[in-house]
Amino acid sequence: MADVMTRKRRGGGRAGAAARRGAAVIDQMPWRIPVNTDRPTEPLDEDGIQAIHDGAMRILEEIGVVFLNEEALGILREAGCRVEGDLVRMDRDFVMEMVGRAPSEFTITPRNPDRKITIGGNKLLFGNVSSPPNYWDMEIGRKVPGTREQCANLLKLTQYFNCIHFAGGYPVEPVDIHASIRHLDVLYDKLTLSDKVMHAYSLGKERVEDVMEMVRIGGGWSDEEFEATPRMYTNINSTSPLKHDHPMIDGCLRMARRGQGIVVTPFTLAGAMAPVTMAGAVAQSLAEALCAIALFQYVRPGIPCVIGTFTSNVDMKTGAPAFGTPEYMRSTQMTGQMARFYGLPMRSSGVCAANVPDGQAMWETSNSLWAAVQSRSNMVYHAAGWLEGGLIASPEKFIMDCEILQQIQRYMEPEVVATGPDEIALDAIKAVGNEGHFFGIQHTQDRYTTAFYQPFLSDWKNYEGWEAAGGIWTAERAHHKFKEIIGSFEPPPMEDGIREELADFVARRKSEGGAPTDF
Amino acid sequence: MADVMTRKRRGGGRAGAAARRGAAVIDQMPWRIPVNTDRPTEPLDEDGIQAIHDGAMRILEEIGVVFLNEEALGILREAGCRVEGDLVRMDRDFVMEMVGRAPSEFTITPRNPDRKITIGGNKLLFGNVSSPPNYWDMEIGRKVPGTREQCANLLKLTQYFNCIHFAGGYPVEPVDIHASIRHLDVLYDKLTLSDKVMHAYSLGKERVEDVMEMVRIGGGWSDEEFEATPRMYTNINSTSPLKHDHPMIDGCLRMARRGQGIVVTPFTLAGAMAPVTMAGAVAQSLAEALCAIALFQYVRPGIPCVIGTFTSNVDMKTGAPAFGTPEYMRSTQMTGQMARFYGLPMRSSGVCAANVPDGQAMWETSNSLWAAVQSRSNMVYHAAGWLEGGLIASPEKFIMDCEILQQIQRYMEPEVVATGPDEIALDAIKAVGNEGHFFGIQHTQDRYTTAFYQPFLSDWKNYEGWEAAGGIWTAERAHHKFKEIIGSFEPPPMEDGIREELADFVARRKSEGGAPTDF
Repeated sequence: MADVMTRKRRGGGRAGAAARRGAAVIDQMPWRIPVNTDRPTEPLDEDGIQAIHDGAMRILEEIGVVFLNEEALGILREAGCRVEGDLVRMDRDFVMEMVGRAPSEFTITPRNPDRKITIGGNKLLFGNVSSPPNYWDMEIGRKVPGTREQCANLLKLTQYFNCIHFAGGYPVEPVDIHASIRHLDVLYDKLTLSDKVMHAYSLGKERVEDVMEMVRIGGGWSDEEFEATPRMYTNINSTSPLKHDHPMIDGCLRMARRGQGIVVTPFTLAGAMAPVTMAGAVAQSLAEALCAIALFQYVRPGIPCVIGTFTSNVDMKTGAPAFGTPEYMRSTQMTGQMARFYGLPMRSSGVCAANVPDGQAMWETSNSLWAAVQSRSNMVYHAAGWLEGGLIASPEKFIMDCEILQQIQRYMEPEVVATGPDEIALDAIKAVGNEGHFFGIQHTQDRYTTAFYQPFLSDWKNYEGWEAAGGIWTAERAHHKFKEIIGSFEPPPMEDGIREELADFVARRKSEGGAPTDF
Repeated sequence: MADVMTRKRRGGGRAGAAARRGAAVIDQMPWRIPVNTDRPTEPLDEDGIQAIHDGAMRILEEIGVVFLNEEALGILREAGCRVEGDLVRMDRDFVMEMVGRAPSEFTITPRNPDRKITIGGNKLLFGNVSSPPNYWDMEIGRKVPGTREQCANLLKLTQYFNCIHFAGGYPVEPVDIHASIRHLDVLYDKLTLSDKVMHAYSLGKERVEDVMEMVRIGGGWSDEEFEATPRMYTNINSTSPLKHDHPMIDGCLRMARRGQGIVVTPFTLAGAMAPVTMAGAVAQSLAEALCAIALFQYVRPGIPCVIGTFTSNVDMKTGAPAFGTPEYMRSTQMTGQMARFYGLPMRSSGVCAANVPDGQAMWETSNSLWAAVQSRSNMVYHAAGWLEGGLIASPEKFIMDCEILQQIQRYMEPEVVATGPDEIALDAIKAVGNEGHFFGIQHTQDRYTTAFYQPFLSDWKNYEGWEAAGGIWTAERAHHKFKEIIGSFEPPPMEDGIREELADFVARRKSEGGAPTDF
């Protein structure tokens, strides 16, 4: 803690120089909110949509979902649901009425208003890898438990890359910080290293309340200002099959009552926690998400809710989870259709099963990111840095993924497919005729610097040029970029008073013992 | 030559054992013709389609295309086109009438009728890398000129993988064979190592005639049988901007007159041989392809023609070609829309700029292969094995790409997105309820072995399992697969009489001096 603060203060005078150096590290695309212009890929016809909807509704009506949360049970009983012990059954009319209250689009405004994001419609937003307990980089060369320093470095990447629009959970779990105070230290790091939209884990009331308070302090907001519009969000998973745990629901209820965003993402692994058939796994996932969203909408009508998907399949041989598979892609697309059917914004992910940032990592991640595009996902979690089915965070993978994300952003720019007379360019074609080339002509000169995507990591040299430059494979090039970015990183500005208030809050809560660790 | 034949003959007795070993090398998907069930991604609206069409037509009407082929000039003059020197201008009515004669779908039947392919509609076919002058594998560890042995090994991969549906050009140029007889030796190797659809380079009349004759012999067909239905195809490139060279047109005319397939693929690199704007590069590409197709349809109405795209962009900094970029994806999709507008089957490619089979190679290749899917391409050239913008062929890349191709095939299988009662699986969800898992239940047991894509190269083990197995990155795993496949490869059956007739033909044509090398 003291270390971090000292670094920040000492670094102040050099900030300008660092910023100038930082600006030169890579030539990245500017911050923007990508708009997904592609018509979504829709594997389901109308009958298929109705079949999955009916399946999800019958799960809620006939089988029911366990809520291990007394408060939720009381609320749902009051709402007219059939509650037996901790099992809740709810009719489709109630579910659809409640879900209909959720906005199809909403904003989250972090401490830097320029980093405001809009979630829903055809907006496409990317977030960093979240929650791996382990870390891998090329210098260490093996899997190690995460540390605060590694976490901070990945937070710096999250802030640095303009193609990362929101901060997810901890980009790696810093297991060198005791769980009772981990949220305090990491949120301090997050808030001082990044001005992007923040996330809170729903892991017990103290953590959620602490993090909301820290985000409020970081924004310099009064309670009223904090609650006036979404400032942050939480993401919860159900415990598939068909169960919601206490802290997840508790955290969401706390966030809902203060007007903050909620993402509900069941993790229905087909063949393990869900049916082996993808439509069944999707229906179950929808049921698990919709019943929680119905609860939150009953408590606070119109609270922003996002329906998440994490439906994938297991390895047939070992039962291990697989990611970025054909089945993953299709279930993501199917969930996208259903999210639009329910009028809810949608979250999916950038995922892979690969253990190192190699070829497999890239085809699996590409599959999952293109599935996010095809499904018209609005939030793409884990879009940069994820390995080993989410058990490892890697800075090289983070940087490689950002190259793909930037390409997706560029892919969505309307000028790429413009067809006006200037783009058909008949005069230019006439001028060049049947000989020569287009390099030197005015039409090219006028557009050359912005006509094409400019990579920061891809090496487009020919083999001889690449070899002369050291013959460096992609992952190692990414490692060098990582070191350069971290070495010249400058945190976004924060008033000294706010930083001190955050530090004081952390110190006070630590002195009080932090949060219980009996979760 | 003798070496190869000796190997084949000696290998005969061990063929059975080799086949049994071979079958066990990898557990691959069966041969099938994938059907692309996705609605294509369409960046152009109706105005955009008309703008590009009008651009292409005006190029042909107002600017014209050079045909460096006297025969073609005579034919086009006869057809009523405006011919001045070697420059040909043609009206859109003529172009559209001629192009309208081309079938929207056709078959090619190689010597093994089970390997017949249908090109057009929503069929999605993959071919091997074609024509790189150089080779790279992990054992050699550097770029080297191609050899006959390397070429044969890549042909074995072409035959081995069921997800490769047709053989393209030489998978690597065997520059250790003199150019005058290269086509004879390689076609002998191709025809004896593979029973899939064959390709002929249009590089002078002798080569085209020799290859057609060898394919005819290989199929055991009479001239009439060879000409009765397409048995093979050629692929030509224009010399952008707006020029067709002599041998390309000559080869196509020879193929057309014998009823064989023709693919016309301009290589319009935006900013170099075509306008810097993608719509202009696409319009020019279409003009170059359509005027050639019009010629072939005038000569032989109804001859199968495929319109190819190879529109990409250059690196803004160096002018070097880039592949698998956002601009490449969009131009491929735009060309797909235009191919459907003209009622022609379409060819695109699996491409990258990367020099080694690493992360960059995989994101660039994934981008291009998904663009092939999104554009509803029918033939995907270079779908396996391409590196360095087509200057290097690599067996590791070939095998990595085949894992992606299989995943695309699986992605297209209707059962993945089936939504019948058995797939919604309400009974299974009811049986498991809110506790336990789906591993052991009957619904899972009944479907477990076929429910999910089963990879042959992806490693889905967790980090510890992967590390215990040697911690091998993807490219190296692919290298091991390559050695195993080559080590146990068994060529498809061919009658001894046919093999001898092929060998005699090769020997005779060599004694006659082969083909001129003044091209």
